[in-house]
Amino acid sequence: MKPIYVGLLGIGTVGGGTYTVLKRNQQEIVRRTGRNIEIRMIADLDQEKARHLVAGDPVTITSDAHEVVRHPDIDIVIELIGGQTIAKAAILEAIQHGKHVITANKALLAAHGNEIFAAAQQHNVIVAYEAAVAGGIPIIKALREGLTANRIEWIAGIINGTSNFILSEMRAKGLDFHTVLAHAQQLGYAEADPTYDIEGIDAAHKITLMAALAFGVPIRFDQTYIEGITQLANDDIRYAEELGYRIKLLGITKRVSNGIELRVHPALIPVKRLIANVEGVMNAVIVKGDAVGPTLYYGAGAGAEPTASAVIADLIDVTRLFTASSEHRVPALAFLPAQLSDTPIVPMEAVETAYYLRLQVMDKPGVLADVTRILADCGISINAMVQKEHADEENKVNIIMLTHKTVEGNINMATEKIQNLPVMADKIIRIRLEELNS
Amino acid sequence: MKPIYVGLLGIGTVGGGTYTVLKRNQQEIVRRTGRNIEIRMIADLDQEKARHLVAGDPVTITSDAHEVVRHPDIDIVIELIGGQTIAKAAILEAIQHGKHVITANKALLAAHGNEIFAAAQQHNVIVAYEAAVAGGIPIIKALREGLTANRIEWIAGIINGTSNFILSEMRAKGLDFHTVLAHAQQLGYAEADPTYDIEGIDAAHKITLMAALAFGVPIRFDQTYIEGITQLANDDIRYAEELGYRIKLLGITKRVSNGIELRVHPALIPVKRLIANVEGVMNAVIVKGDAVGPTLYYGAGAGAEPTASAVIADLIDVTRLFTASSEHRVPALAFLPAQLSDTPIVPMEAVETAYYLRLQVMDKPGVLADVTRILADCGISINAMVQKEHADEENKVNIIMLTHKTVEGNINMATEKIQNLPVMADKIIRIRLEELNS
Repeated sequence: MKPIYVGLLGIGTVGGGTYTVLKRNQQEIVRRTGRNIEIRMIADLDQEKARHLVAGDPVTITSDAHEVVRHPDIDIVIELIGGQTIAKAAILEAIQHGKHVITANKALLAAHGNEIFAAAQQHNVIVAYEAAVAGGIPIIKALREGLTANRIEWIAGIINGTSNFILSEMRAKGLDFHTVLAHAQQLGYAEADPTYDIEGIDAAHKITLMAALAFGVPIRFDQTYIEGITQLANDDIRYAEELGYRIKLLGITKRVSNGIELRVHPALIPVKRLIANVEGVMNAVIVKGDAVGPTLYYGAGAGAEPTASAVIADLIDVTRLFTASSEHRVPALAFLPAQLSDTPIVPMEAVETAYYLRLQVMDKPGVLADVTRILADCGISINAMVQKEHADEENKVNIIMLTHKTVEGNINMATEKIQNLPVMADKIIRIRLEELNS
Repeated sequence: MKPIYVGLLGIGTVGGGTYTVLKRNQQEIVRRTGRNIEIRMIADLDQEKARHLVAGDPVTITSDAHEVVRHPDIDIVIELIGGQTIAKAAILEAIQHGKHVITANKALLAAHGNEIFAAAQQHNVIVAYEAAVAGGIPIIKALREGLTANRIEWIAGIINGTSNFILSEMRAKGLDFHTVLAHAQQLGYAEADPTYDIEGIDAAHKITLMAALAFGVPIRFDQTYIEGITQLANDDIRYAEELGYRIKLLGITKRVSNGIELRVHPALIPVKRLIANVEGVMNAVIVKGDAVGPTLYYGAGAGAEPTASAVIADLIDVTRLFTASSEHRVPALAFLPAQLSDTPIVPMEAVETAYYLRLQVMDKPGVLADVTRILADCGISINAMVQKEHADEENKVNIIMLTHKTVEGNINMATEKIQNLPVMADKIIRIRLEELNS
C-alpha cells in the first residue's frame, strides 16, 4: 500500500519533534498501522533549518505553506505554524483541497474552530487537534470517545505548564512571582512575552475547547472568564498551605442549572486531592462524568516530543481510518496480528529492582558485619539502613535496609545465606522497591 | 436509521449498571452518535431480576445466552456473565454469527484472548474490552490509540481496587491485613472468596493484557509473576512510610534489554509520586512512552456505573464505525454538528464558589464585628478564619477567611463594602476555592 504522504507546516519546537519521533518510531508505527507515514513536504521560512532537520531524507522543502496544502501528493497536512493568519488560511485551503488536517493550534481553534470544523464537515475531511489541549495527554480522545457513556458534569484542569511551574516554584522556594517568572524564562519554561501563559489566556483557549467537547456547545472563547496568576502573593500561597490548600491556576467548566460555567482563575484546592500535587510544568485534567465519577489524566502538557506524541497519534488515527476496514480500524491488541513479536518474558530471577529488606535479628555484636558481608559478596549495595526496636521482644531488633537495584537472583542468594545466620530470629521480609522515575 | 440492537448477557452489578446508564443517558448518546442504541435481549438465569430491571421496556428476556448470540436482530453482544466456560462459548458463538462483542471479562481474555481475538479477526467482527482493565478509566483506548506515536517503555498500575483499599486502610488505621479484609468484605469491596483480588491474580489478568497492548506480544498470563498482599505486615507499611515510601500492589510490565518484565507484587514507591497517593478503591496506571514521557490515568477501577461507562464507550465506538463515514466517525467536537445546544454561559456574577479572603486591616477593636456583619448581610457564611501578623507593619494584621459557597455577586458586593471600611489598610485579596469533590 502506498505510504500516507504528509505535509508539515512549521518546524519550530513541535514540528521538529514531530519529524524526529515519526522517524525514530517508524517501525513501531508500521507494526500498529500496517502503513508507512512519510513527511514528504515541509514549509518553513527557515529552509536551512529544514534541510538540517531532514538530513538528506527525500523531503521537498519550501517557504510557501500554500504550495504544500495544494500539492496533489499530500494526504494529510500538519499545521504547526501557530498564530491565526497564515495558519488559518493554510488550514482552510488544505480543507478545500480535500486534505485532512492535524493542528496543535489552540488559539486558532478557540477563536475560529466553529468555522474550521464546519468547513471540514462540508469538505468531508478530518481536522484533528489532540495536541491542542494538554500536550501529550490524550484528553481529547478521552472526552470524544473514552467517556461517551457519560453526561459530563464538570472539568477542572491544570492546563498551562508555565503558570504551574511558577506557582510550584513560588511555593517550594518562597519566592515572589516576578523572581520566579524571570527564572522560568531563563529555563525556557516561559516565553519572552509570557502574557498568554501567565494571564490565563492559553488555559482559556484549552478549557473553551474542552467545554465544547464535554457539553456539545459551540466554542465560545469570548465568553470565557479569564484571570491569571500575576497578582498572587507568596503570603497567600503560604496561608493557603497552612489551611490545607494549594493554589493552582485552573481551567474550569461546569454544567449548572442555569447554564455552563466557563472560567480560568487561580483557586485554592485541598492538598489531599491528587491534582493539587501536580507540580512543575506538568498538566492534569479531572473529568467528572455521571457514570464513571471523577477520572484524572496527567502528563506533559508541552514540549517538543510530548506534543509530537499527540500530533502523531492523530496522524495514526487518520491513517488507520483509511487503511483498514471498519472492523479492523484499531487492532484488538494494538498491533497488527501479523506483527506480534515473540519477545520473551524475563524470568523473575533476572528482573532488576531495588529491595526493602527487614531482618529480625538477635541484638548481638557482629550481626551487621555478617549481613553486610553477605550482601557485598552477592553484589548488592545498600542505599539506606535503619535499626528499629522490635515491638514485642527486647533482645530482638529490626534491621531495615533499602538496597540499590540488583537482579532478583542476587537477592535470593543473599537472603538465603542471611536467613541461615544463627542470629536470625524470624523470616526475612523482602518487598521490592520501584522508584517509577526512569 | 435503524437502532443498533444489543444483546446483554448477564445482569449482575455491571450488567445492571450498563442497562441503567444506557437508558439514562440515551439522549446524550444520540447527540454523540446520531443513532439509538437499544438493549433488545437479555440473557440471565434470574429472569425475574431481568424483568424488574427492564421495567416494561420491550426487551426479550431469556435464560439462554445462546438464544441471544444467534438471534438475527442482534448487532452487538455484551458479555457480562464472567467466568470462562459459558462466557467463552457465548463469545465464540457470537463471533461466528458475525456479531460484534463487548466484554469486561479480563480473566477470560487473559487466558483465551489470543484465541478469541483470532476468531474475531477471521470473522471480521470487533471484540472490544475497555471495561476489562481499570474499569471506567479509558486506558485501553489510551494504549491502542492515544499513545501510538510512542515506543512504550513501561507500565505500572494500581489495578485492583480491593487490595488498594486494604493497603490504604492498613496504613491509615494501623490495622492488620485480616482485620481490614473482613471490613472490606462487610463493605462489599472484597468478595466472600477474595483470592483473585488479594493474591494478585486479578491484577495479573490486567497487566498481562496491557503488556500485549504496549509491546505487541501475545497475551501470556501463564508467564506472569504473581505475588499478592496477604503477607504484608503493618510494621513494614509503617517503616516504609518513615523512609518516604508507600506500599502498593502494582502490576508492572517493562521493556528491558533481555525481554519483557511482567509481574504483580507489592512494592514500595516514593510518597512524592502522584500514584503513591491513590487511595481506597481507586485505580491508576502510569504509562511511560519514549516521546510523551510518563502519563497517568486515574479513576474508579470497578463498580456498576464506572464499569458500565467503559462498556458503553465500546458500544458507541462500534456504533460510530457503522453509522458514520470514516471522515465523520467521531464528530470534531464530540457531538454531531446538528446536535449542538446553545446552553448559555453563566455570567461570572452568578457563578457559585467558595472564597479565600485576606483582609489587611489596622489592628483595632471592632474590625471583625464590622466585617462579619457585612458578610452576613450579603448572605455569605464563614467556614474558617485565622488572624496572622502582618509581615511588615506592627499595627496591621491579616485576617484570612474561607467562606462557604456563595455567588460571586455577593462577594463583589461584600468586598466593596468591606474595602470602604476606614480600618482597611490595603486592597482585599480574594481567591476562589474549589473543593473538586462533587
